[in-house]
Amino acid sequence: MLKKYLLAPGPTPIPPEVLSAMSMPIIHHRSTDFIPVLESAKKGLQWLYQTKNDVLILCSTGTGGMVGAVNNFFSPNDKVLVINGGNFGERWTKICQAYGLQVQEIAVEWGYTVKPEAVEEALKKSPDIKGVFVQASETSTGVYHDIQTLSEIVKKRDNTIFIVDAISALAAHDLRTDKWGIDIMVGGSQKGLMLPPGLAFVSISEKAWKMADNAKLPRFYFNFKKEREALAKNQTNFTSAVTLIIGLNESIKLLQKEGLENVIKRHENLANITRQAIKAIGLELYSKESPSNAVTAILAPEGIDGQAIYKTLKDKYGITAAGGQGKAKGKIFRIAHLGYADIFDIIIAISGIEMVLAEMGFPLKLGRGVAMVEKLLLLRSS
Amino acid sequence: MLKKYLLAPGPTPIPPEVLSAMSMPIIHHRSTDFIPVLESAKKGLQWLYQTKNDVLILCSTGTGGMVGAVNNFFSPNDKVLVINGGNFGERWTKICQAYGLQVQEIAVEWGYTVKPEAVEEALKKSPDIKGVFVQASETSTGVYHDIQTLSEIVKKRDNTIFIVDAISALAAHDLRTDKWGIDIMVGGSQKGLMLPPGLAFVSISEKAWKMADNAKLPRFYFNFKKEREALAKNQTNFTSAVTLIIGLNESIKLLQKEGLENVIKRHENLANITRQAIKAIGLELYSKESPSNAVTAILAPEGIDGQAIYKTLKDKYGITAAGGQGKAKGKIFRIAHLGYADIFDIIIAISGIEMVLAEMGFPLKLGRGVAMVEKLLLLRSS
Repeated sequence: MLKKYLLAPGPTPIPPEVLSAMSMPIIHHRSTDFIPVLESAKKGLQWLYQTKNDVLILCSTGTGGMVGAVNNFFSPNDKVLVINGGNFGERWTKICQAYGLQVQEIAVEWGYTVKPEAVEEALKKSPDIKGVFVQASETSTGVYHDIQTLSEIVKKRDNTIFIVDAISALAAHDLRTDKWGIDIMVGGSQKGLMLPPGLAFVSISEKAWKMADNAKLPRFYFNFKKEREALAKNQTNFTSAVTLIIGLNESIKLLQKEGLENVIKRHENLANITRQAIKAIGLELYSKESPSNAVTAILAPEGIDGQAIYKTLKDKYGITAAGGQGKAKGKIFRIAHLGYADIFDIIIAISGIEMVLAEMGFPLKLGRGVAMVEKLLLLRSS
Repeated sequence: MLKKYLLAPGPTPIPPEVLSAMSMPIIHHRSTDFIPVLESAKKGLQWLYQTKNDVLILCSTGTGGMVGAVNNFFSPNDKVLVINGGNFGERWTKICQAYGLQVQEIAVEWGYTVKPEAVEEALKKSPDIKGVFVQASETSTGVYHDIQTLSEIVKKRDNTIFIVDAISALAAHDLRTDKWGIDIMVGGSQKGLMLPPGLAFVSISEKAWKMADNAKLPRFYFNFKKEREALAKNQTNFTSAVTLIIGLNESIKLLQKEGLENVIKRHENLANITRQAIKAIGLELYSKESPSNAVTAILAPEGIDGQAIYKTLKDKYGITAAGGQGKAKGKIFRIAHLGYADIFDIIIAISGIEMVLAEMGFPLKLGRGVAMVEKLLLLRSS
């Protein structure tokens, strides 16, 4: 018997309350049974997003939300700015290019965060840039971009909207949609919301809705105006992913019980403890600046393959962490502390890493990382 | 207490085996735990689709599969032929127009099936038509279009592909993808496959893949070539809807145990018995020709609102059937016999209809419809 531990940056473990709610007999999406469920989920998302704006609920992965954030607001040849500091930054570029936009990139070295001045300068040089795209937490590098400062820069411009992929950051970082002026923010179900994959969420500001009026890119499945009309009636444009939305309601209930501030603080603490423990083992973080609260990216030691660490954790210890993506593949491995995660998930991760690395010949003192976790937890609660 | 009965044409009831499998702790979509699950689902879909071709698994509603069937195979201004005999025929037109195709329609009166000669003639007159779009079962009217004959007509043409929306027909009708030469067939999870909404399936012939090489419509989320590459490795291009695909495996297991021929025969029998019982009550079918095995559309009697019948069935008896869609709204109501359905679902539906209509003042003899169900079942089993 090998017990399974899921510590990947999505899907993340699903709380039993949520699994149980989702295993009830299904109901019809246009019926009076479901309307109140969707209404409650809609309000819950506004709470989580810290917004009074619409938060659309789409039946797709997070990437579908990203596509909708492009094809509902722009026209062919529009100029946009993409902050590309990892695999998901690259995805923004690819989506924009697939739809015929002119993409200007700010290439950020993997493991580093974008310099807000670079964005300010790019916008000054090209006043025709209509959208600025970024990740909040770049899952591939474990870096958080400073969304507040970036929002403030873009907010000053009347004809530019700020689009944030918060798929892995939602619930893990404090993202003040309305206060900061984030125009479009994309979330996904299988991350901080502790649900199976299959839902994307997109908040949209009035400034963005105005841009949508002149947007000429083709769209049908991800048609946000139609979704907005449906949402006003507590429905979705096409068939609702009923089961997942029922689960969403339960997840939000759990988060609300904990309180948004506490939820974010928990992620912050777990991330911080993980980083200290990783250093105590003698490992180096891959994220050189502004590490994410959702996932910790760790450099594999000299001479050890990051994918081999991932694979051994999985095969020998039942721990599903994550390897590297794109050009970081082989160089790093990643541990998520996202969603339904507490201190013993970190203990398991650190303990597993210690054993795997010891077996691979990396010189370490067994238990030193775990001791650091315990020490920091005791300090915090004393 | 009001027990709930789901008799809508999607979502349909989910078997307990499937609910139970889906409520297990989630696993990671790129892990060795999940690869065999996806491989098995892939093979199961090929069995259900009666095809050796790829059947893609998308995280979206069925409509997403329909969009992909357009944007992966055509270029702006391509001419296509849409057989439009209901709400979902109209959807093909709307999708094609949203992507800038030139749509020629064969308008079929609602409740009737398309005349194959009309398609043959249209193709002769316009040799530049690149695709013919149709529904197998048009859910809004309860009509089945003759897919075999239509396939044979389109198959003769080298530069035209045949695209079938089989979302509500899959598992309810015998659809021989390879034998008949259906180029693209779209399915959805929440119908005959007895799953929650959230998955679309698309089979693609070699003829269609060749057309895809020259297709210039923009695409990113529904990118079938990328999905094909991922599927070859038993993965999906973006995050897999893990939970639903685990359920899909269980559903297919149940269908395989019953046998495809028996599954289709069961749907055929239930549909036939429903129609006879409806006539025995003194009601008229809305489908004047070639009624669907998936759903029966019934004309509301003179002076009675179809939506009121739907609403009373739901509110008073806990039976979720369906009203009318589009221009049939108010005129009809619909009863599905799709997926996890047996004879007592029909008994419940007919009994509920008898009571609701009696209360609404329609002259009928209570029990006559139910008696017809029983009589036909006894005949069949003797």
